[in-house]
Amino acid sequence: MPFDARQFIRDKRDGARHAPGAVRDFTAAFTRGEVPDYQVSAWLMAAFLKGLSDEEAFELTDAMLHSGAVIAFDGLPGPTVDKHSTGGVGDKISLPLAPLVAACGAFVPMISGRGLGHTGGTLDKLESIPGFSPFLSVADFKRLVATQGFAFGAQTEELAPADGKLYALRDVTATVECIPLIIASILSKKYASGTDAVVFDVKTGRGAFMRERADARELAEGLIAVSRKLGKRASALVTNMDQPLGRAIGNALEVAESIEILRGQGPEDVKELTLALAAEMLVLAGLVPDPSSGRARAEDALASGAALEKFRAIVVAQGGDAAVVDDPSKLPAAPHVAPVPAPRGGFVHAIDAYAVGELVVRLGGGRARKEDTIDPAVGIVLNRKVGDGVDAGEPLAHLHLRGPLTPELEQALAGAYRIEAGAPPGAALVLERVG
Amino acid sequence: MPFDARQFIRDKRDGARHAPGAVRDFTAAFTRGEVPDYQVSAWLMAAFLKGLSDEEAFELTDAMLHSGAVIAFDGLPGPTVDKHSTGGVGDKISLPLAPLVAACGAFVPMISGRGLGHTGGTLDKLESIPGFSPFLSVADFKRLVATQGFAFGAQTEELAPADGKLYALRDVTATVECIPLIIASILSKKYASGTDAVVFDVKTGRGAFMRERADARELAEGLIAVSRKLGKRASALVTNMDQPLGRAIGNALEVAESIEILRGQGPEDVKELTLALAAEMLVLAGLVPDPSSGRARAEDALASGAALEKFRAIVVAQGGDAAVVDDPSKLPAAPHVAPVPAPRGGFVHAIDAYAVGELVVRLGGGRARKEDTIDPAVGIVLNRKVGDGVDAGEPLAHLHLRGPLTPELEQALAGAYRIEAGAPPGAALVLERVG
Repeated sequence: MPFDARQFIRDKRDGARHAPGAVRDFTAAFTRGEVPDYQVSAWLMAAFLKGLSDEEAFELTDAMLHSGAVIAFDGLPGPTVDKHSTGGVGDKISLPLAPLVAACGAFVPMISGRGLGHTGGTLDKLESIPGFSPFLSVADFKRLVATQGFAFGAQTEELAPADGKLYALRDVTATVECIPLIIASILSKKYASGTDAVVFDVKTGRGAFMRERADARELAEGLIAVSRKLGKRASALVTNMDQPLGRAIGNALEVAESIEILRGQGPEDVKELTLALAAEMLVLAGLVPDPSSGRARAEDALASGAALEKFRAIVVAQGGDAAVVDDPSKLPAAPHVAPVPAPRGGFVHAIDAYAVGELVVRLGGGRARKEDTIDPAVGIVLNRKVGDGVDAGEPLAHLHLRGPLTPELEQALAGAYRIEAGAPPGAALVLERVG
Repeated sequence: MPFDARQFIRDKRDGARHAPGAVRDFTAAFTRGEVPDYQVSAWLMAAFLKGLSDEEAFELTDAMLHSGAVIAFDGLPGPTVDKHSTGGVGDKISLPLAPLVAACGAFVPMISGRGLGHTGGTLDKLESIPGFSPFLSVADFKRLVATQGFAFGAQTEELAPADGKLYALRDVTATVECIPLIIASILSKKYASGTDAVVFDVKTGRGAFMRERADARELAEGLIAVSRKLGKRASALVTNMDQPLGRAIGNALEVAESIEILRGQGPEDVKELTLALAAEMLVLAGLVPDPSSGRARAEDALASGAALEKFRAIVVAQGGDAAVVDDPSKLPAAPHVAPVPAPRGGFVHAIDAYAVGELVVRLGGGRARKEDTIDPAVGIVLNRKVGDGVDAGEPLAHLHLRGPLTPELEQALAGAYRIEAGAPPGAALVLERVG
């Protein structure tokens, strides 16, 4: 009997829970092309407005997860573990994190996607390394994870193709911002890549998809609940995205900052979040009993240079120019670097991460639309972050530009800063742990 | 600038009222094919769940009304007036009503559609008259209305094509049962046919689309409010569809019953509703000051035979065999006529109009799907209606069948009757007037 999409839509429209198996059948039917887009989108809107239960989100996730290839890591001597971030501005954490956790003995099959809008994508950042390719065959990806302890793969159409179809439809029907649908999208892709465990970095604040902390917590809890139904281990950190992460925003600039971190240098917030997420991953991998021992092990792997060597090895293994690891000036560089002076003195109270992310898109370093190409060299390096003092005329940031600085660009950057007379109260980076 | 469908959907999703003109722009854009079905259906579901204001319903109606041809009756010596019924079982009222109101001096450009599911369609009924064609050119339709006082036209793709597109999408996305969308659908078609005024027969009860009387009243009020925004005159009767209307259900059988009414005979409820609606139409046309004088004038036109002569003239003018007017046995007749006996004696308390309508579909006299063809001859004639007494074994009804009577069909008819010991309380046919 063909799937009765009309009755299925009516049930969710009326706020009913779908019968067990119904969401699974629906997902399978639309993956086979048997439910037209106009019925899928009506259901998506009903689901957006009436909600999905954990069980329904689980069925959707599981069916999408199995809609294409599912990578299996058999025969590894240890467990696999990955990290997923809900996306932020200046979020280059995957780059230092994967080699760091691999250096501690876990296996990290890291699959990443491209950036869209104000948030960057790990894939775009990696591609700014000359020669580096994240487009690995499944066999090569598995081989690298087994031999190097990790690899940087690309989200492709082979993994969870149903999610790709559903996401494209959500994007054009105003049904993206729905927590159960977000959960299903994230988890189906993530677990199709074969990982046993995931730590979620759920961003909240002005530069994040989840602006409200309560929504971020709800998402974190849902990600963990559905992960467990899938037989996976998971935990989450809810972290602050009220200002950009680190100082560099822009693809090559973020690679350079990631290498600094692997050298034991770099901005404190990037280092802090890398270590916190590494600690969670080592706990999930069963390599340490608790986050504090995980953190100690990760600090050792940074200090010893083991994490940096892991990164160098994967750059070579994935076709990249390893010379950039020792000399980041070999990364693509913008022809113009222009300071943006502070319009007045005081203390930085806020940096609008959304505005900064949008400015990088205007510079050519991000995508307004999926089909846009990006300029790896351009971006922003922040000289002042929240809590810092600044005198009038001192540079707030430097813009790395393809063309000359214009008053509009200068104003866009300066306008993202809120500068006031007194020092602001301190704000935590990791707001809470869920798990 | 192209229409921003995503923002439009988001607004309704979030429960906002659309900006003035936005619904009009949306309707124009999807009529031009510039908004894909998957975005239209997401908006339909949001509108279903969040509602539309009278103003939004008005814009949708007005834009759909003008999405195709709009018939204009210029130069008639009097106003045009039409009737619209929300659909019921045994509802043949249009057939006697249009000639009756025309005989009283109003102009009735009656446009009808086909039946679907348990409800019949006036177009199907008229086509059971040998030779009769409701498919008139606009010029012929206007000419007949001017010369005969009325004509029976067919809803075509030329009138309000946007409604046809939208309805097809609502049908498959579980967004039919939404009062503002129903209003826009009814009124866009109705007013594209050029009428100045409409009386609405809004059915409620077990055999009606609006099962709850409160919903029927809300629909009636909305139809009138949006009609007035369009500059049209309108009133409504909320009427009982808890049992079929009249005795005959089935296409040719209903034509025969309509002719009985025009002869001053026929079932009391059909006569009553025909006169009540005629009275409203004569008020709307400005020919009488109030419904009671309208009713008196309609009674005269029935008694004098003027209405019957109008009907005879239109049958001839539209290519039909006028001999059926004097001898309804010339209508298509089924080869088998089988009584269904009462399983026990008592009083009829209810006749499930929905079940009776569905039984006619099973006999071949209605459509389960739009593309089905129908058998004009088959149907049901009820011998007993609500309030009537019956002895066990006496016929409840006669089935007019293409093949022999089966126990299943007999059971389906008998099962639609509820027979109890005492007489039931009386129930009104016209429940209330709205206007």
